[in-house]
Amino acid sequence: MLLDPGAERSGGITDDRAVLQAMLDVETAWVRVQHRLGLVDDGTVTAVTTAAEADRHDVARIARAAEDGGNPVIPMLASLRETLHETLHETLHETLDEQRTADRHAAGVHSVGGGAAAADIDAAVHRGLTSQDVVDTALMGIGARALDALGASLASGADALARLADAHRRTVRVARTLGQPALPTTFGLTAADWLSALDDACDELAGTRASLPVQCGGAVGTLAAIEAVAPGRSLAAADVLAEELGLASHGRPWHTDRGPVTRLGDVLVRTADTMGRIAADIVLSSRLEIGELREPPAEGRGGSSTLPQKQNPVLSVLIRSAAIEAPHLGAVLHSAAGLAVDERPDGAWHAEWGALLRLVRRVVVAAAQLEEVLSGLVVDADAMRRHVDEMGPALLSERVLTEVAALPNGAAAVAALRPVLHGRARARHLTPLLRAYLPEAVLSDADIEDLLDPLQYLGATEALIDRALARHDAGNHARHAAPAHPDPSQGEP
Amino acid sequence: MLLDPGAERSGGITDDRAVLQAMLDVETAWVRVQHRLGLVDDGTVTAVTTAAEADRHDVARIARAAEDGGNPVIPMLASLRETLHETLHETLHETLDEQRTADRHAAGVHSVGGGAAAADIDAAVHRGLTSQDVVDTALMGIGARALDALGASLASGADALARLADAHRRTVRVARTLGQPALPTTFGLTAADWLSALDDACDELAGTRASLPVQCGGAVGTLAAIEAVAPGRSLAAADVLAEELGLASHGRPWHTDRGPVTRLGDVLVRTADTMGRIAADIVLSSRLEIGELREPPAEGRGGSSTLPQKQNPVLSVLIRSAAIEAPHLGAVLHSAAGLAVDERPDGAWHAEWGALLRLVRRVVVAAAQLEEVLSGLVVDADAMRRHVDEMGPALLSERVLTEVAALPNGAAAVAALRPVLHGRARARHLTPLLRAYLPEAVLSDADIEDLLDPLQYLGATEALIDRALARHDAGNHARHAAPAHPDPSQGEP
Amino acid sequence: MLLDPGAERSGGITDDRAVLQAMLDVETAWVRVQHRLGLVDDGTVTAVTTAAEADRHDVARIARAAEDGGNPVIPMLASLRETLHETLHETLHETLDEQRTADRHAAGVHSVGGGAAAADIDAAVHRGLTSQDVVDTALMGIGARALDALGASLASGADALARLADAHRRTVRVARTLGQPALPTTFGLTAADWLSALDDACDELAGTRASLPVQCGGAVGTLAAIEAVAPGRSLAAADVLAEELGLASHGRPWHTDRGPVTRLGDVLVRTADTMGRIAADIVLSSRLEIGELREPPAEGRGGSSTLPQKQNPVLSVLIRSAAIEAPHLGAVLHSAAGLAVDERPDGAWHAEWGALLRLVRRVVVAAAQLEEVLSGLVVDADAMRRHVDEMGPALLSERVLTEVAALPNGAAAVAALRPVLHGRARARHLTPLLRAYLPEAVLSDADIEDLLDPLQYLGATEALIDRALARHDAGNHARHAAPAHPDPSQGEP
Amino acid sequence: MLLDPGAERSGGITDDRAVLQAMLDVETAWVRVQHRLGLVDDGTVTAVTTAAEADRHDVARIARAAEDGGNPVIPMLASLRETLHETLHETLHETLDEQRTADRHAAGVHSVGGGAAAADIDAAVHRGLTSQDVVDTALMGIGARALDALGASLASGADALARLADAHRRTVRVARTLGQPALPTTFGLTAADWLSALDDACDELAGTRASLPVQCGGAVGTLAAIEAVAPGRSLAAADVLAEELGLASHGRPWHTDRGPVTRLGDVLVRTADTMGRIAADIVLSSRLEIGELREPPAEGRGGSSTLPQKQNPVLSVLIRSAAIEAPHLGAVLHSAAGLAVDERPDGAWHAEWGALLRLVRRVVVAAAQLEEVLSGLVVDADAMRRHVDEMGPALLSERVLTEVAALPNGAAAVAALRPVLHGRARARHLTPLLRAYLPEAVLSDADIEDLLDPLQYLGATEALIDRALARHDAGNHARHAAPAHPDPSQGEP
Repeated sequence: MLLDPGAERSGGITDDRAVLQAMLDVETAWVRVQHRLGLVDDGTVTAVTTAAEADRHDVARIARAAEDGGNPVIPMLASLRETLHETLHETLHETLDEQRTADRHAAGVHSVGGGAAAADIDAAVHRGLTSQDVVDTALMGIGARALDALGASLASGADALARLADAHRRTVRVARTLGQPALPTTFGLTAADWLSALDDACDELAGTRASLPVQCGGAVGTLAAIEAVAPGRSLAAADVLAEELGLASHGRPWHTDRGPVTRLGDVLVRTADTMGRIAADIVLSSRLEIGELREPPAEGRGGSSTLPQKQNPVLSVLIRSAAIEAPHLGAVLHSAAGLAVDERPDGAWHAEWGALLRLVRRVVVAAAQLEEVLSGLVVDADAMRRHVDEMGPALLSERVLTEVAALPNGAAAVAALRPVLHGRARARHLTPLLRAYLPEAVLSDADIEDLLDPLQYLGATEALIDRALARHDAGNHARHAAPAHPDPSQGEP
Repeated sequence: MLLDPGAERSGGITDDRAVLQAMLDVETAWVRVQHRLGLVDDGTVTAVTTAAEADRHDVARIARAAEDGGNPVIPMLASLRETLHETLHETLHETLDEQRTADRHAAGVHSVGGGAAAADIDAAVHRGLTSQDVVDTALMGIGARALDALGASLASGADALARLADAHRRTVRVARTLGQPALPTTFGLTAADWLSALDDACDELAGTRASLPVQCGGAVGTLAAIEAVAPGRSLAAADVLAEELGLASHGRPWHTDRGPVTRLGDVLVRTADTMGRIAADIVLSSRLEIGELREPPAEGRGGSSTLPQKQNPVLSVLIRSAAIEAPHLGAVLHSAAGLAVDERPDGAWHAEWGALLRLVRRVVVAAAQLEEVLSGLVVDADAMRRHVDEMGPALLSERVLTEVAALPNGAAAVAALRPVLHGRARARHLTPLLRAYLPEAVLSDADIEDLLDPLQYLGATEALIDRALARHDAGNHARHAAPAHPDPSQGEP
Repeated sequence: MLLDPGAERSGGITDDRAVLQAMLDVETAWVRVQHRLGLVDDGTVTAVTTAAEADRHDVARIARAAEDGGNPVIPMLASLRETLHETLHETLHETLDEQRTADRHAAGVHSVGGGAAAADIDAAVHRGLTSQDVVDTALMGIGARALDALGASLASGADALARLADAHRRTVRVARTLGQPALPTTFGLTAADWLSALDDACDELAGTRASLPVQCGGAVGTLAAIEAVAPGRSLAAADVLAEELGLASHGRPWHTDRGPVTRLGDVLVRTADTMGRIAADIVLSSRLEIGELREPPAEGRGGSSTLPQKQNPVLSVLIRSAAIEAPHLGAVLHSAAGLAVDERPDGAWHAEWGALLRLVRRVVVAAAQLEEVLSGLVVDADAMRRHVDEMGPALLSERVLTEVAALPNGAAAVAALRPVLHGRARARHLTPLLRAYLPEAVLSDADIEDLLDPLQYLGATEALIDRALARHDAGNHARHAAPAHPDPSQGEP
Repeated sequence: MLLDPGAERSGGITDDRAVLQAMLDVETAWVRVQHRLGLVDDGTVTAVTTAAEADRHDVARIARAAEDGGNPVIPMLASLRETLHETLHETLHETLDEQRTADRHAAGVHSVGGGAAAADIDAAVHRGLTSQDVVDTALMGIGARALDALGASLASGADALARLADAHRRTVRVARTLGQPALPTTFGLTAADWLSALDDACDELAGTRASLPVQCGGAVGTLAAIEAVAPGRSLAAADVLAEELGLASHGRPWHTDRGPVTRLGDVLVRTADTMGRIAADIVLSSRLEIGELREPPAEGRGGSSTLPQKQNPVLSVLIRSAAIEAPHLGAVLHSAAGLAVDERPDGAWHAEWGALLRLVRRVVVAAAQLEEVLSGLVVDADAMRRHVDEMGPALLSERVLTEVAALPNGAAAVAALRPVLHGRARARHLTPLLRAYLPEAVLSDADIEDLLDPLQYLGATEALIDRALARHDAGNHARHAAPAHPDPSQGEP
């Protein structure tokens, strides 16, 4: 979209065509399920699979007709059946019927006569399902593709951060709280902190991905119509549908129990939060007066039509915008979930769709943008060090006061030091002052130098970096060892 | 969109093509402003106006290029200038130059030579503006069209309600609080209450419509580049731009003061709230067990693929879904507004676009759906009366207890009555009980009949209906008397 | 509250005691209304007024009993009646009865006998009202006090900004967009921009204040029980109640039409937005590396337990936190409004209370904090100028390129200039470069100096400041001329 | 709070006193950590533990002083140190010093002289921590208690549902979609569905409970000051703190990585969603016209001051109100998380507190209310069956049409049946109609009776109930087998 900069990075994952295909995939998979249950023959599977390609359908027409039923399933089915009939007539007519008759004999499927082929296929399509089964499952399928894409972007961004964390272990910079300089830290620790947050997100995304369920309950969640054609096997059919689509089984219909939707939404929002705060740090650190970080330069990126000096951190700005919007989109899903009534909600279900699709796209795009930013992030270690030096001893006041206080006559020295340590203090003012209270024997010049060395007051910085890197490496190993998620677009493995 | 049922009712008001046209309209209007300031000649206006038709531009290409600058203005300008050059070359080349030379002499515009025509036009396009001027003004333009459409839908819905309020003045029904029967009311009052809420919305929408401002501040809100070419007249130029576009002038740039956006959002959300609660009442009243209202029947509307008995109040359900989502979209605008910093926000501005456009579409569509529902709403007055009768005297317990208590020996009668008035009481049980305590002289049989007549305990119902109708009529008169908003697509009046 | 820093600045406006008093005030006012309608005598007014002091009631006990009815009105009434009976017995008993008998004769009020005095008063209390009348009206009363307090804080903050805008008309500083230096502006314009935003808020708050309505509809919005005791005068009674409480009349009950609540919420959130973005600018400008603004220093403010160099802009930080939360609180009100059903909502109404009270407190406190910040804001004009100078000609690139391009051979000069104007350029590099393309006759040294003078590229800065100051002054005049809002705590004027 | 009905069910878990105690508990635990690291002696632990009782502190005074530092830690520490000094002087003075001297010898702790005891204790308190360590950890402690309380309420509610699911396996009722009757289901399945949702919530809550981390990073997340006194052991100290408080260790500071807060918030909101939709179903089913469910009657509950017939489902109404508000409170946490910058956020952190505490209280109270509702829920099986019977064959239209269509001449019969199956159809009309197309041999009278028996079209209802019950039982077994969470108020086991 025009006012959705970078939207093409989503690969069209939430476009109408993709949504239609996801819905058609559910119908195809359901026919395959019926095949596995012995209810339909090979020909039916072939025919439906052929007809269920989104390109064979007029998406806009289906969209326009969606209002009457409150969702696009009725017109989608009409279009699917129409296409099926055309296909049957035009190209497959004779051969198919022959093949089907043979198949039926072999499979023992009850046949009501050759002429009934089309009617049989018609009856098999969507048999026992309800609109919500199709829409919910399709959205979970889109969610699955989104989480796969997200995982890949974030993993790659995390790899870049692991390199930065390691390379900048000793790149000292000013740590700031409430916007004000506080103590020294290192950019390596900052990168490690971002890294761990991304690794947390990756883990959560993987967990959520593995649990995204199909919806399969029939008109009111009793699976009555499925049970009627496959007595005692309706719940198994739902499990098989999950297999067919590379999704999970929830063990029960969730028409009005919207946990699967809100859990997906929540993990997307948390991912947006994490990306948002990294982007906020980058935008802030890119301010000319700070100038510690810079987005990777790219031809035509971040410019202005009239201000040639501008180098806007435009990807981070866009990521931030996604993070500002995402919490509200996630909250739509919760508002809807809490209002689900009866055996299908009277408006709350319908409120989920737009919010979920938009949330998916925003987060997938932001992750791709973040991957690009992190992969080429420009770190100005000199600027970081310069700010540390400009702060001087004030940046180490916590240490100076604590350690001096513990020395003989330290309390008096501390009282004298306090006023000096306001704002940007100068080291050269500090030494004579210390010396006035503390003899060389108590605190030597070398001690003072050590005391004021930011590199010697970094606490557990390195250990924290090591932890983050070790965890990241372990995650990478696990990921590479594990079998990838079956590609849901491939259907039956 | 496929999962945005009824979206086509918006008339494409928020589609990419419309957004692009709205942005191009700003650029054209700005050239007209320069013309009125004597800065450009007629030929420039003609050339830019011709080139600035959305159909001449590749919207998708502009959208794809939007990321680099963080918004689509840079690629839109590139496309506009490209189109302008092509146009100039192919069709207008000679005549235009001749005409322009003549114009310049007439207008006294400084000419740097005939060959500079294209460069001059180039310079005039977007001169002194910034991306945000274009995007913000374009969004206000879309907002203006949305409010016009909304106003029309709601006014028509309100007219339908006025008819219902009048027709059902004495159609008694059960008033319910916390879901439980409370007292009698009339459907006329319900309709009058909805009517007043819609009339409030119409008034608010009209007020907001009249105040939607253009954005015109230049790169940082100082209008420096505009002032450079039109010294002392830059603020006037902004006012003229407003005139050209049928929008208001804010008197100052509002790049980081997002009141115009949040006020628009808030009034849209309040409108959604009002529509949502009317729809909720209709969905509830349509439940088979209540059955007091029904959406207008329409071929193919509200059906189900497998359940022929279904008559889902599907428009109301969709309106409800908009009302569930809208508060969150409005809140995005506020979150963004509170984070605006510097002379242009670093992400907060960008977060507004998607939320505002989606909010606009949702509300415009819901209003069109509501108009249809209200215009044909089926009222089952018998069902309403039946529920009143089934409740019996219990529905009048407030009255019975208060009035009996005031009679001699009333306290004893009240004590005896209380337990009988639980749940659905029967009138025939009440009379002997009353008689046991109160002689005919104190409370005659006719008095008891009156006491238990719901039509005699309707309070100010009729007066409230009259008020609502009078106000609605007055509003209609005022509307028809007032000059319509200038059509912003027409530009200069 | 412990984790609500600064909460005491609200003056307890949303504390339980204040809420209880506001509810009791409604009951008292309603008795006064009945007195004006000739339904009760002076003694009743006196007795109820005396009993309806919050300090006479056990707030905690009433709070604990609120769950059974879903709101605190039933236990509040029980407590009020209990207190009334005690009062009547203990102190007023004899005199009151005498006085009442006399009054009744004078007033012609029907008397059912001296012994019935207490029962009569009992019956008068809350007569014909419903819980929602009391709670809604009480919340509007609290809203009124909040808007008065807010208006005062913001007006005072605006006065401070008016002084700053005037004093810093020519205090040049770097304007930043997307976090990056763009063009010069002045701090005077920044202050004027904040000023206008606050003045907008003041205007909106005043408008909202004037329209906050009482709720008066009886059990189901028909005013049936009021109409029963005052036939034909029930709607007038509602108007009189508004007079008594210094609130407005809505002309109809709004039990399920929650516009009054959402409009109040929206204006509070918009005010929070405005304060939030000012605070965000201050926090950003207070960063040590920027250092252009500083909160007024105060003993013990903004410090840290262990870091003596810290000067945290703590009030602005807290204002920001309110602005981050406020949009969500406002959205609760909209979610509730869109779900209102029947003649009283089944949960949506109850969802408003906590969100509205919290929103009120957050915004009132933030306004008081902002007033303090603005009244003593420390402006470092030297730092502002230093950043301008450090940017050098790059900050004027828009001007340089545009004006040079218009000169003979300007295009060539522009091509040469562009690469130099990236980042922080130096003026001394620019002059020889310009000279290489443009002879002194075309662009003199003095011209170049002018061209690069930030004070000469400030556009309409001064005019905008003048506008803002003139509007602020006009508003102040109007405010002082207008009669203040009647103090709602005083009751009858 | 007065307008927070039922708040006392929270047991004061979020009251100021509890918050202060939770913060003091962190300080005490941190002294115990130092003791385990050999940094302080027993006497210090005793002294701090004694002084750190909330009742010894003036909560209101600390709250009032919280603004200056932006949070209450500085005044809390001042109060703690003051109390500590008083305690030391008044009661423990001599004995303590003796004991401490002995301890130090035993423990080998470096002593700077007997007179330094108080100063030593002072230095130990809060040593190396930062305000955020205390506040974040305290909030996680409160979260832990909240999740424990929630888990207990929900488990008990789930037990009640398990009984209902089993008891009502064959209690047939109308399943409704979009508010309209669709097919038969059983109340047992409804209860089983609610049960599984609650069991999901319990599982999630338990998982979240186990992962709630302490915060321990020192001023900027480097643990520099801790590392200074315990070289190489600062990260271990954080782990020990977790042990002491019965919380988890996050493995790193999370000052700006707010996943622990948003994950807690999200699971609370999901729990609220689940409770909200159950409550919505109950409110709806309690409507007099439906009357299938009723809240357990309780003296004084659900009544009205003037309408004796009212039996409002007031607990469910209040639960619904919590579910309407909760998504917005959760979204505050996400908005804040996405804005975290630097080494401590400049307002975003502060925005979390109020929202989190309110969310905690709302959800804990709602769970207690839901437990009460479910434990005594009144099920009217007759009303359920009556509604099924009133719908007649229309409720089985899906089945009738599908099965008839499959019979010889079924298509013609279906065409005739369709119009009859609208609305509430009567069985007696159906039989002759079927007979007109289908001879007894194809569809016997007994077949028709079976076809129209709702109990024979319940699909996998029983299997789904069995699954839900089995899972619930397994969860109960696991819960009882597992060791309970260590009581965080007990500290060291």
